[in-house]
Amino acid sequence: MPDLLNGKLFAPEDVAVLQEIILHRRDVRGARFTDRLPPEQEIDQILTAALHAPSVGFSQPWEFVLITDKHIRQQVKDSFEVTNNAAKADFKERQQEYTRMKLEGILEAPLNIAVFYRPPAGAVLGQTSMAETGVYSVVCAVQNMWLMARALNIGMGWVSILDAEKVCRILNAPAGRLLVAYLCLGYTDGFYARPELEILQWDKRRDREEAIRYQRYGEQPDGSAATDDPATRTRSI
Amino acid sequence: MPDLLNGKLFAPEDVAVLQEIILHRRDVRGARFTDRLPPEQEIDQILTAALHAPSVGFSQPWEFVLITDKHIRQQVKDSFEVTNNAAKADFKERQQEYTRMKLEGILEAPLNIAVFYRPPAGAVLGQTSMAETGVYSVVCAVQNMWLMARALNIGMGWVSILDAEKVCRILNAPAGRLLVAYLCLGYTDGFYARPELEILQWDKRRDREEAIRYQRYGEQPDGSAATDDPATRTRSI
Repeated sequence: MPDLLNGKLFAPEDVAVLQEIILHRRDVRGARFTDRLPPEQEIDQILTAALHAPSVGFSQPWEFVLITDKHIRQQVKDSFEVTNNAAKADFKERQQEYTRMKLEGILEAPLNIAVFYRPPAGAVLGQTSMAETGVYSVVCAVQNMWLMARALNIGMGWVSILDAEKVCRILNAPAGRLLVAYLCLGYTDGFYARPELEILQWDKRRDREEAIRYQRYGEQPDGSAATDDPATRTRSI
Repeated sequence: MPDLLNGKLFAPEDVAVLQEIILHRRDVRGARFTDRLPPEQEIDQILTAALHAPSVGFSQPWEFVLITDKHIRQQVKDSFEVTNNAAKADFKERQQEYTRMKLEGILEAPLNIAVFYRPPAGAVLGQTSMAETGVYSVVCAVQNMWLMARALNIGMGWVSILDAEKVCRILNAPAGRLLVAYLCLGYTDGFYARPELEILQWDKRRDREEAIRYQRYGEQPDGSAATDDPATRTRSI
């Protein structure tokens, strides 16, 4: 096998390109999409990125349904409206703010892609104790698509305010398929320099230190913060 | 807001770089790692990629525990051995083939990163009907890390043959945290040109057509293949 160890080595310029793509990726909603369908070649590049995602045990448990049909998209949009109306109540005093936001681009984007997990028929290497890694593989494929779309200057938005079972019925999904993501894709009139929810002050970027620990958690297993003093989160590597 | 629509536009060369990184990303196991710890700056670049992943409602529900401590890694390795021994039985006539494979690099890689999901305290925009999108955000962060590590020529492997609750105890995770991924990172003696499980003929790459549908599934909702004739999967966009 050592003769197969000839995988490419990347240069610092390549790192810089990837970093820019990652930092400039955005969740794109309806107000930004134009109705011009990206050419087949660019859609294929996005799908190629998906199909080369990591998958547990090389199981490749993904399926992609490409939807341009307006009637089908309208059915999904109708389902979004019902689900989104129900969701508003969860945001109490921020309900008006929530209602003002445009959270999907199902009809505005010329292409929708529904991404499914197809459960395996038998045991999958690596999936025996953490069964959820099958679905996680599909999510990795979605993230590859997002980055590739962004590099192609194609906007992509992930619509999660949906009744997954209803979408499965609309798309005639075989029994057992799980809807992982419902994506809207198309050209845009521009990309925001920062995340839209940050611009709208819905939430702010968390401090880096908040998300990183060294060696193990300093917190008590019961979740109390007694010993989770940020001062003890010392960098020791 | 339109004055904020000044996000970068990428060129075809940038697309080509991203495609190469995606196609050359590999799951790296023990036999390939060297014990030299990557410099702090490169680890920071990998974490920056993670922290700029998409997250539902900009919730950023991730936590990363960086582990270099050998005693802690040994405990995780011990847990892997128990779980992996139990897994072998699932592979029946391929058990010997399974046993020969090196499936992790917990001790060989100088850096392990355990990636957790921290459930939100209140309602999260976009997570109201598909609660699993919180965990999916964390998986997107892992995929960003994987691509950034590869661009830096740092190997990364995802170890999923673990008892997640046992790993939570070893790392003293507060109640409610969910282990999403356990990663091994370090320099390597090379990268395979193709996925290791493909080289070892454990499984093969699926045909592109197998994973792609147009407009909706042709199959019956009961899963029968009656109308799922590949000939009906015509490209109509």
